[in-house]
Order: sequence, then structure tokens, then C-alpha cells
Amino acid sequence: MSRDDVFHQQAQALGYRFDGEIKIGGHYSPLVRDGHCLYVSGQIPRVDDTVLVTGAAGAQVTVAQAQLAARICIMRALALLQRSLGSLDRLQAVCRMTVFVQSAPPFTQQSEVADAASEILWAVLGSAGVHSRTSVGVSQLPKNATVEIDLIATAAD
Amino acid sequence: MSRDDVFHQQAQALGYRFDGEIKIGGHYSPLVRDGHCLYVSGQIPRVDDTVLVTGAAGAQVTVAQAQLAARICIMRALALLQRSLGSLDRLQAVCRMTVFVQSAPPFTQQSEVADAASEILWAVLGSAGVHSRTSVGVSQLPKNATVEIDLIATAAD
Amino acid sequence: MSRDDVFHQQAQALGYRFDGEIKIGGHYSPLVRDGHCLYVSGQIPRVDDTVLVTGAAGAQVTVAQAQLAARICIMRALALLQRSLGSLDRLQAVCRMTVFVQSAPPFTQQSEVADAASEILWAVLGSAGVHSRTSVGVSQLPKNATVEIDLIATAAD
Repeated sequence: MSRDDVFHQQAQALGYRFDGEIKIGGHYSPLVRDGHCLYVSGQIPRVDDTVLVTGAAGAQVTVAQAQLAARICIMRALALLQRSLGSLDRLQAVCRMTVFVQSAPPFTQQSEVADAASEILWAVLGSAGVHSRTSVGVSQLPKNATVEIDLIATAAD
Repeated sequence: MSRDDVFHQQAQALGYRFDGEIKIGGHYSPLVRDGHCLYVSGQIPRVDDTVLVTGAAGAQVTVAQAQLAARICIMRALALLQRSLGSLDRLQAVCRMTVFVQSAPPFTQQSEVADAASEILWAVLGSAGVHSRTSVGVSQLPKNATVEIDLIATAAD
Repeated sequence: MSRDDVFHQQAQALGYRFDGEIKIGGHYSPLVRDGHCLYVSGQIPRVDDTVLVTGAAGAQVTVAQAQLAARICIMRALALLQRSLGSLDRLQAVCRMTVFVQSAPPFTQQSEVADAASEILWAVLGSAGVHSRTSVGVSQLPKNATVEIDLIATAAD
């Protein structure tokens, strides 16, 4: 089974589609390629026009909801990589994932939230999905999103 | 008109000069080059010795003031790139811009703040300025700055 | 004296050992190498199973304690680079260090906290340790850590 098939399965399991237009405003791009390096812009848990998980983890938002947010963010990032490369089978490695979790002051489970995204990278990409990672708690995110994730990845030659 | 001319125009429009010494403390550098990759340290809206925009967006600071802060940060980053390369015409691409906005909890317009920096990259660099971007809200920044921006860029061979 | 010797001296001066297992959970890696680039995951001030410095700078935690946290984080990062490369003498450059400081709202000395890590890079690596840097204040970090530091470094050929 190709990585694209697994990606499709994961999307079905989540119950969302990631083949719609990924809208952005401003003079920037959701993905920039420099040689074999691919920089994916910070993704929030938006599907079409709706940010599906908003608010601060540890306050309005449970760990499970924040993990759902992380899954949607990383699926969006994978969707962008798939479109840019034609197929996720052309992805070589994920060098760095940074996970920003909107966190109420007492919430310290940012790693557990990030694990949900790491698991999807492993499920879809296997050993190519083994990444370095930084998870932090922040006071706010654009559009009150609960999670924002960006990536640096590489393409096979 | 060269990119350096447009940069100069943008500085005049902002009403600040970016040709002074960019002071830093500590054992680090405002810019590190690795091959064709240029890593620019986090820039705050400082001109000479003064941080011009301080405080949290959504509290003491309006969106317009935070956008001014973002413009000053990105102009500082461009000034550093210009000095390192001799001319901004030698810049190939801006791979990643990360925008940290000091945000009061209800403030969710980090993207709108970042747009102000993205617009300057577009104005000065054109399509070479189309970058990937991550914008987050943080609880504090050095010297109470409202915005901090760092970059990964590349130089033409 | 080799860099590894200086690293050992620094560890002794801090009073901690950095040769134990560096545990992580989830499907990610503490260090990913892509060509000559090395991405080190966000390190918190943990030695063995204990996070040694927790809480927010400016509240429970003094600047001096946060600087100790930063020193432990960067020593962990260096320990990971040493294991990956065999010796720190094979490290070419540190391109980017990002320092996240858990900060109470009035705390604005994130740069002073980061300086403690920058000084260790200078002490151990000399001019190869001169890095670009971004320091920000965040509302929380995993396991209530006071500081988290990640790196992008390069290896000599």
C-alpha cells in the first residue's frame, strides 16, 4: 500500500477531507521548496473554512480534543507535501516538526498533544516519518486555534 | 529599480533608518551562513537603542501598532541580509519566516500582524520574497517587545 | 584540549552527568540528520528522570535558576550531537538555536536566560559555536519545564 493510500485511510478515519483548497491570506505560501528541502507553513486545524478545534488546552479544551487538533494540522501538512511532490512516496524525511499548543497556564501535556501528530507521521511515512520535534505551550494562536504545526521535510532526488 | 532601492524607499516610508549598528549581546551572531542558507536571529522592533513597540497586542497595543512592529522587525532582518550579501539582489529565496506576537489571551490576529511583514518581503523581493510562515502568540518577548521575527533565507550562487 | 574534554569539564562544573539514556516518548527522534544538517529536538532541563528546573521565570523561578535550566538544556543538546557524530570535534557550526522560556507576563529577560546557553556553546565549540538565536517567552512547556531549547547544527564533511 502506498503512503498516499495510508494518508487517505487516515483522513477517512478522522472523518475529514483534505483535498479541498487550502486557503491562505497574505503574500506567503503554504509550502516553499529550496533544493530538496520543503518548508511547510504553520498549519492550524482548519478544514475548508472552519477551524475545528479552538481554545486553550487545559481550559475549554481537553487533551483528547487537542490531540484531534494536532492530527488535523499534520494531515493538512501532509496534504500540502503530497500536492507539491505528486505523491508522499517522494518524501524522504521529516527533519523537524514544531508543535505550538495554545495552553492555559497549568497545562503541561504539550508532548502528549504532539504525540498524536507524530503517530500519524509514523503511520503514513514509516521510518521516513521519524522526525525531530519541539513542543511548546503558547498563549494564543491565529483564529484561536488550539494547535499549530509547521514542518521542515526533504524530498527524495 | 534594485531591491536595495526599494528597501531604502520602504525605510523612508516607515521613517526609520536601518543602517546603524545592530547591537547584540552574548556569544551569538545576528546572522549565520551555512552554504547558501542564511539564518537570521530573532529581530525585535528596535532602532538604535530603542525598542519602538512594546507590550501585548490586544492589551496596550493595537493591531496597527503590532503591524508597525512587524514591519520594523522584517526591515532589520532585511538590513542584516543586505549587509551579509552586499546587496539584496543576491538573495534567492526566503524559506521560512516565524513571527512571534506578544499577545493578550483574547488576541487572535497574529496572522494579520504577520501580514505586514509578508507585504514588505513581497514589496522588496517580489516573488523571491514568497515565504513559508508560522505565526504564534506568546506570553512575552525580550525587552517587552511586541513582535519578534526570525528568518531562514537562501543566497543565489 | 578537545571539545569533548571541555564538554566534560562543563558537565562537571554543572554537577550533572549527561551520558545517561536520553528518554523520549512517541514516534520521533531526539536528533535527525539530513546530509550535513543535524536537527536536535527541543531539550528540557531533564537529567535522567527528573526535570530539574520547573515553573515560570519571573514567578517561582529566578533569572539565575532559568539560566541553570538553559545550561542543562544546551548540555543535553551537545550530548546528543556528541553521540551522533562520535565527537564534538566533528561539529562544523550551530546555525540556529531557539530558546523558549516559560515566562510570567512581566518577565522580559529571555535574552539573559538564553545567554547562559550561548556561553556554553562558545566555551565548548569556540567560533564554531557562534549561532543565530531566537528567544521567546511562552506560557507553558512540557512537564512544566522552565526552558526548552532546540538546535539546527551542521557536521564537518
